[in-house]
Amino acid sequence: MSKDRYDRGLEKLRQIHGKPGELVIKDIEAFSPDLARYILEFPFGDIYSRPGLDLKSREIGTVAALTALGNAEPQLRSHIQGALNVGCSRQEIIELILQMAVYAGFPVALRAMNTAKTVFQELDR
Amino acid sequence: MSKDRYDRGLEKLRQIHGKPGELVIKDIEAFSPDLARYILEFPFGDIYSRPGLDLKSREIGTVAALTALGNAEPQLRSHIQGALNVGCSRQEIIELILQMAVYAGFPVALRAMNTAKTVFQELDR
Amino acid sequence: MSKDRYDRGLEKLRQIHGKPGELVIKDIEAFSPDLARYILEFPFGDIYSRPGLDLKSREIGTVAALTALGNAEPQLRSHIQGALNVGCSRQEIIELILQMAVYAGFPVALRAMNTAKTVFQELDR
Amino acid sequence: MSKDRYDRGLEKLRQIHGKPGELVIKDIEAFSPDLARYILEFPFGDIYSRPGLDLKSREIGTVAALTALGNAEPQLRSHIQGALNVGCSRQEIIELILQMAVYAGFPVALRAMNTAKTVFQELDR
Amino acid sequence: MSKDRYDRGLEKLRQIHGKPGELVIKDIEAFSPDLARYILEFPFGDIYSRPGLDLKSREIGTVAALTALGNAEPQLRSHIQGALNVGCSRQEIIELILQMAVYAGFPVALRAMNTAKTVFQELDR
Amino acid sequence: MSKDRYDRGLEKLRQIHGKPGELVIKDIEAFSPDLARYILEFPFGDIYSRPGLDLKSREIGTVAALTALGNAEPQLRSHIQGALNVGCSRQEIIELILQMAVYAGFPVALRAMNTAKTVFQELDR
Repeated sequence: MSKDRYDRGLEKLRQIHGKPGELVIKDIEAFSPDLARYILEFPFGDIYSRPGLDLKSREIGTVAALTALGNAEPQLRSHIQGALNVGCSRQEIIELILQMAVYAGFPVALRAMNTAKTVFQELDR
Repeated sequence: MSKDRYDRGLEKLRQIHGKPGELVIKDIEAFSPDLARYILEFPFGDIYSRPGLDLKSREIGTVAALTALGNAEPQLRSHIQGALNVGCSRQEIIELILQMAVYAGFPVALRAMNTAKTVFQELDR
Repeated sequence: MSKDRYDRGLEKLRQIHGKPGELVIKDIEAFSPDLARYILEFPFGDIYSRPGLDLKSREIGTVAALTALGNAEPQLRSHIQGALNVGCSRQEIIELILQMAVYAGFPVALRAMNTAKTVFQELDR
Repeated sequence: MSKDRYDRGLEKLRQIHGKPGELVIKDIEAFSPDLARYILEFPFGDIYSRPGLDLKSREIGTVAALTALGNAEPQLRSHIQGALNVGCSRQEIIELILQMAVYAGFPVALRAMNTAKTVFQELDR
Repeated sequence: MSKDRYDRGLEKLRQIHGKPGELVIKDIEAFSPDLARYILEFPFGDIYSRPGLDLKSREIGTVAALTALGNAEPQLRSHIQGALNVGCSRQEIIELILQMAVYAGFPVALRAMNTAKTVFQELDR
Repeated sequence: MSKDRYDRGLEKLRQIHGKPGELVIKDIEAFSPDLARYILEFPFGDIYSRPGLDLKSREIGTVAALTALGNAEPQLRSHIQGALNVGCSRQEIIELILQMAVYAGFPVALRAMNTAKTVFQELDR
């Protein structure tokens, strides 16, 4: 295990997803510690920690891709929250989801819009 | 046919894709004029013309989604070019494609990387 | 906003989906009025309003595609109901779903069959 | 091996796809006789031979699904031809492909439109 | 209906999935007897009954594919149980799911890991 | 960069894919050295190097998944070759591909069968 990658990943996870992100990882850890570790090391420690693309743009890319794929509800929810955390406005996220109707069809856009609605409502409670 | 949406779409298409984009539409028009018209009216005239998300962010979202979907080579090629036209750097595009390995697997990232390579090489000729 | 496309779309929506379809749109409207409007304008106002393919054939195509895609449960449910509304028999819908096992595998056919069962049971209450 | 299902499948294949369909099966047979046999027995001998949905409607469903899936070019080509053989008009096929932009995005519709163009051009030679 | 294929399929279903598998088929039968019959005849009677690949390897392939496809939760659950029944260890299944992150992304691996967790917990009750 | 993971990955790559695998990585390296490095480090250095599932079973899982996904031709080709290298027979690979018709439809099985044919023919030259 690379301590550096793990620690860097944990820091990046906190920066993007905050406390809720840590809890998700804790949850994964309880059943599959190796998957939890790989998630910290590779996506967060390697990829999101790279220079060359700012975090806001990275989250825009991820929200777009997860909307288009249409089969990763928990991650979409988590990254809509992450996008807000790193500087996206709610309007920007809604625009992005609307745009995905063009590339992956209206059903996946509608599904992601419902996810965004849920995230925003939880924040407003 | 809404003249406004069509004209606005054509203008937006030119802004993002330039002359090559117009040629693609011409090509579609020759066989399916209705599909060509809808592409100008809905994606370009309606969606990309909306305020609330800048064009560079829109292209980042589109390149990410097309990379992740992995089944839209001509559009990916065209939007990598479009992303460059509206202000993305080559490095930003490469970072974005790398990141998609996390959400949709290494094969689609590799495939999109090859597409980016081809686009960049054509620009350098 | 094109009044014509919107009104034509609303009329077509009513013809295919009836009152339940209007309620779905109302629901979308409450959170994302633009997405609701685009759904009326483009799919219903533009596409389903075109001549050249009868509504029953259009619904057959949509139910087949949504079954095969396997990630659009609410739309599949809504279009199974729509297919019945425009003249498909229950048997025709079941045949169509069975056939999709060939092109997209048994799991998506099984999932769509469960959706059809639910729709039919609700109608029989 | 069930002689009945195989023979019924071969007859149905001929009815839908004609001589070109038989050549495709011959081609598959040369490398994987079992896959060739299963294709005749299950899709053609079992599914397409069922009553309850006419062949034209079956082909409409298949062309729609293959367009939406976007990863089965040779089968799409073959079923566009098959749809024409069992009574679809070219216009009906184009309408169906256009409609898939709504459910699976513009890129897959565009790709299928190109396939239709190729099929029609070969017929006009 | 081929008695041989049906009976052979039922026997193979019992061998892989045991009593729970029979109950699933019973459930499908109640609404769509033809789909239930095809599932016994083709996947189980034809494919899984073939020599040339042992059952454990077949289940490894199926669990991998269903994890990667990411849209067939009930079948994944059933085949994780089936894999255990024909000789896979829990660790082997977890390894296989982890590996799918490489080919289809972390979200589908995470989703399948949750499914495995549920299956294992039910067995331990 | 973790020297250990990279070196372990390179060794594992050689064990599975031999010389052709190294050439593929070289090719990726020329355009995107970071992607090439991640492929060695994560899939090969981390995942394929784990104990708990033998290499033959890992390759069976990968060939099954890539067949089912249907959008990763170069990787499928490479892993069919890899499966042979680590002990799968040609018959086992063909059985596995046939089986995927059940879970992802006949078109992707047919496509993968063609890929297998090509790999086997190249080996027989």
